[in-house]
Amino acid sequence: MTISASPAASAASPASPATAGAVPDAQHLVLTLSCPDRPGIVHAVTGALARRGGNITESQQYGDDETGLFFMRVAVLTRVPRGELEADLAELATTYEMTWALDEADRRVRTLLMVSKEGHCLSDLLFRAKSQGLPIEVVGVVGNHETLRDVAEFYEVPFHCVPVTRDTKEAAEAELLRLVEELGVELIVLARYMQILSPALCTRLRGNVINIHHSFLPSFKGAKPYHQAHERGVKLIGATAHYVTEDLDEGPIIEQDVTRASHADSALVLQRKGQDVERRVLAQAVKWHAEHRVLLNGRRTVVFA
Amino acid sequence: MTISASPAASAASPASPATAGAVPDAQHLVLTLSCPDRPGIVHAVTGALARRGGNITESQQYGDDETGLFFMRVAVLTRVPRGELEADLAELATTYEMTWALDEADRRVRTLLMVSKEGHCLSDLLFRAKSQGLPIEVVGVVGNHETLRDVAEFYEVPFHCVPVTRDTKEAAEAELLRLVEELGVELIVLARYMQILSPALCTRLRGNVINIHHSFLPSFKGAKPYHQAHERGVKLIGATAHYVTEDLDEGPIIEQDVTRASHADSALVLQRKGQDVERRVLAQAVKWHAEHRVLLNGRRTVVFA
Amino acid sequence: MTISASPAASAASPASPATAGAVPDAQHLVLTLSCPDRPGIVHAVTGALARRGGNITESQQYGDDETGLFFMRVAVLTRVPRGELEADLAELATTYEMTWALDEADRRVRTLLMVSKEGHCLSDLLFRAKSQGLPIEVVGVVGNHETLRDVAEFYEVPFHCVPVTRDTKEAAEAELLRLVEELGVELIVLARYMQILSPALCTRLRGNVINIHHSFLPSFKGAKPYHQAHERGVKLIGATAHYVTEDLDEGPIIEQDVTRASHADSALVLQRKGQDVERRVLAQAVKWHAEHRVLLNGRRTVVFA
Amino acid sequence: MTISASPAASAASPASPATAGAVPDAQHLVLTLSCPDRPGIVHAVTGALARRGGNITESQQYGDDETGLFFMRVAVLTRVPRGELEADLAELATTYEMTWALDEADRRVRTLLMVSKEGHCLSDLLFRAKSQGLPIEVVGVVGNHETLRDVAEFYEVPFHCVPVTRDTKEAAEAELLRLVEELGVELIVLARYMQILSPALCTRLRGNVINIHHSFLPSFKGAKPYHQAHERGVKLIGATAHYVTEDLDEGPIIEQDVTRASHADSALVLQRKGQDVERRVLAQAVKWHAEHRVLLNGRRTVVFA
Repeated sequence: MTISASPAASAASPASPATAGAVPDAQHLVLTLSCPDRPGIVHAVTGALARRGGNITESQQYGDDETGLFFMRVAVLTRVPRGELEADLAELATTYEMTWALDEADRRVRTLLMVSKEGHCLSDLLFRAKSQGLPIEVVGVVGNHETLRDVAEFYEVPFHCVPVTRDTKEAAEAELLRLVEELGVELIVLARYMQILSPALCTRLRGNVINIHHSFLPSFKGAKPYHQAHERGVKLIGATAHYVTEDLDEGPIIEQDVTRASHADSALVLQRKGQDVERRVLAQAVKWHAEHRVLLNGRRTVVFA
Repeated sequence: MTISASPAASAASPASPATAGAVPDAQHLVLTLSCPDRPGIVHAVTGALARRGGNITESQQYGDDETGLFFMRVAVLTRVPRGELEADLAELATTYEMTWALDEADRRVRTLLMVSKEGHCLSDLLFRAKSQGLPIEVVGVVGNHETLRDVAEFYEVPFHCVPVTRDTKEAAEAELLRLVEELGVELIVLARYMQILSPALCTRLRGNVINIHHSFLPSFKGAKPYHQAHERGVKLIGATAHYVTEDLDEGPIIEQDVTRASHADSALVLQRKGQDVERRVLAQAVKWHAEHRVLLNGRRTVVFA
Repeated sequence: MTISASPAASAASPASPATAGAVPDAQHLVLTLSCPDRPGIVHAVTGALARRGGNITESQQYGDDETGLFFMRVAVLTRVPRGELEADLAELATTYEMTWALDEADRRVRTLLMVSKEGHCLSDLLFRAKSQGLPIEVVGVVGNHETLRDVAEFYEVPFHCVPVTRDTKEAAEAELLRLVEELGVELIVLARYMQILSPALCTRLRGNVINIHHSFLPSFKGAKPYHQAHERGVKLIGATAHYVTEDLDEGPIIEQDVTRASHADSALVLQRKGQDVERRVLAQAVKWHAEHRVLLNGRRTVVFA
Repeated sequence: MTISASPAASAASPASPATAGAVPDAQHLVLTLSCPDRPGIVHAVTGALARRGGNITESQQYGDDETGLFFMRVAVLTRVPRGELEADLAELATTYEMTWALDEADRRVRTLLMVSKEGHCLSDLLFRAKSQGLPIEVVGVVGNHETLRDVAEFYEVPFHCVPVTRDTKEAAEAELLRLVEELGVELIVLARYMQILSPALCTRLRGNVINIHHSFLPSFKGAKPYHQAHERGVKLIGATAHYVTEDLDEGPIIEQDVTRASHADSALVLQRKGQDVERRVLAQAVKWHAEHRVLLNGRRTVVFA
């Protein structure tokens, strides 16, 4: 399974042989869906699950009055083969024009981390994945410099140095896509990766690439946000995790947070304070994404936290 | 309608004539329930609502693995007379051993505020009820001093002075209960009321009295928490909104928050900083309660925020 | 004493007869100053105070490496007539090219509040001034609508309705200046006042007018920030208290804070959540200003919190 | 230089040959002091520094009305040999009965980290010391298990396994003291070290050992605070960094912070959320200590943040 334009479609592809064959043990599944809002959706969905003996352990929903779209996330414990559930859901999906995905609740999402020279987000994500239950499996780290190779290797994750210059950008992105295919990558996290992905790549990977921006967007878009913040004299600085789109720094926001700044903080001090916020915000966004708690709603996100 | 031992029972009492007679316009209802956890509850409940043409606009649930209890809050838009829905739900309630309540989503809960001399919580709640959509109707203010009469009267709310001394405590509580009956009070908020309610009264009003404690419980129980906090040299001070029970300062917590303290803060400064937290925390707890977002789970609460 | 272009000059004007005549009781004074940075300033200033038997109770300073400016705030307990101290300080000021001000530590600053129709900041400031030690004396409320007259009058503060239309704007500002003179106003607080002051007025009152902007500046400048925030899908909303300058929403920031927003929050809900932040941020900024803790440093502020 | 009962005494010992010999380049020094409060201290101290051509770059002070003690921290840029300054200060110290210390502003404090099996604080401190300017030099890691050896070694810090059982506790503490001497340790950080130091050791190292407690003290003292917090149903959980004293969990608090908890959080989830707070709070406390911003005031601390 790998990144595709529609995560729902890929996740809803035929179940793996391991789960499709015989009656399995009870497993914990997560269903996410969105569709035009109308009466009866919740009942229909919970019905499809209940008829298969599923016990709903979590359920959240949201209807957006402005767009007329309905969003839902349901966690269910069931002994029914996943393939059968998927068949039922596919039928419902037609009726209700749903985009949907079904996944194992605790499956670690195959993740590629991309970095440049700053290691605070990389170290943090690798530590959380190893020791604190962050549900991602880091299948590789791509750096456009060698700087952070040792960090990746300490965590026993393969490091791929893919330098980027104006002339090699196209080749670098081809290499990246090759790695995505080869490693079965489902999620890419730009963990302080200082290169801009091409519009074509952004479009192709839409909804599957998370970036951490080192400012409280939409303030201080673009370069050197801590210098901008210092110059403006703000009293809080922040960070923003968002999906990457072809509009730089304009992608749907997943999470934001701030910390207090003082008149005495130089741009360097702001940067260090900010790095704490960056890694916290990014880890939260990655966790929510990997738990299937983030749904795209146009330029915005629905987060079933 | 007035406070009773079981809020579910009272809320589920026969609908008022206004809504029970003819087919009403679409109305927004909120159903809250708890029962022993087992498969099928969500489907059964959403089914009961769907069969009546209800459109679920919000739904949250929680299963407590330790107690085996299941909690749910559903908001639904429906044109069905409320009495018919209640009949369906009563049947479900028997099957699933549910405690439940159905109420109009935007109905203002009839609320009695109790105060002593400090007015920050009183002013805040009255202002929010009048101008900021806090869904309570303040039907009276009871003070054991005259100090805050003018505040109540500015907001055109009757003020009842019910002094309390050791000798008059019993009579004062009788007077309080008389007011509760007479005014149809559903919720009592102790908005910095410095008297302790008797165990009998606490038991009788259980789940319907919210207190604000001026510390981050369970730290600094009892008297003069800001002095205790100052003495201990804590770096954050807080406040706690909780349901009142016969165990002083031990009732189920609804909401808490903190603010930063410094070594230079005297007990008086801590108190002033704390008052900001108190009024914010209390207003949040009252809002959640009035929106039927708080369910009792033994010594704890479930808050569907 | 009234607003002038240079607060230092006005505050350092000849002491009032009450304090200049005979040896007074010990009084608590606050000295604020800024000047080009160079060695010896702190010693010279503390020396001037020590020679007069002053006991320094608080002292903060900041040297801005970028502008080469030095800022200081000293609180001192002294029995020396204020006039004598001022003479000493005036001499120092010449040597060190200081801008400076000396004031009583606990004197309530004469403040004019300006409002339109939303009362949350007005109610809050009046309550804090009356009951929670906010060191301002509210000498009047100016509204461009009648809406909030009753709030002002409840707190026994004169309310002046000064409507503003395109045609009457000039006259309205003249009337405002007349009130400033007549009431001896030292500080103007725009407590959700929805008119824009003319550049000439902004310049004239520079450093003495505090505005609350209902966004986390520099995000969402201009109109309807909560709608902009909702549209952009931010996960935190905020408010900013700043000095008013002729560049709209660009004045030096005094204080900012944020609160959490959710995908489910409508623009109206964001507005209500935001109002809580607005009043808290504005009250904090006014408190710091009134305690002489805020010094202007070009486009930024130094806040000795 | 090593840990002694009085940090001031050790820090004020004769300057090292490197700085005592000839006129050095301008260096950045930090002076901290406490003494009985009386008029003239600030002037006397700044005078001693000014006479030596020092330029004060930071200065903070606090007078505790209750204890009558005065605390001060001054940063100064000077070209004067440190030994001469120390001679002047020693004289002042006699006059004013000061406890004082003078140190280089950016010197990395020689620090020993102690751990058991949980690595979140260890990883965080080592990363910050290496890459984010935390001003400590980690001269060793002591673990009572082998679990975290690889983390220490990745950061090229010697790891010493010193197991502790009831029988070997005395020997283990002797070994610890031997390491402290041998490595010239100035600060010990208990970074989730799950053994209790003996009262004698606590007394000997007083003021030089920082512990992180995984609760918002004084709530949930003792074992399993996250289980206690879950049981009590609190809505915020926190962590506390404090100096270790012979009274377990009662030492002077340096820093605290909290994060939001929900009814749905199991004790395990609380623990993971809490670990984020723990490492943040501990890193902040260590930073402030290493920058000489924390002064002991009986059971409390003064933090010149």
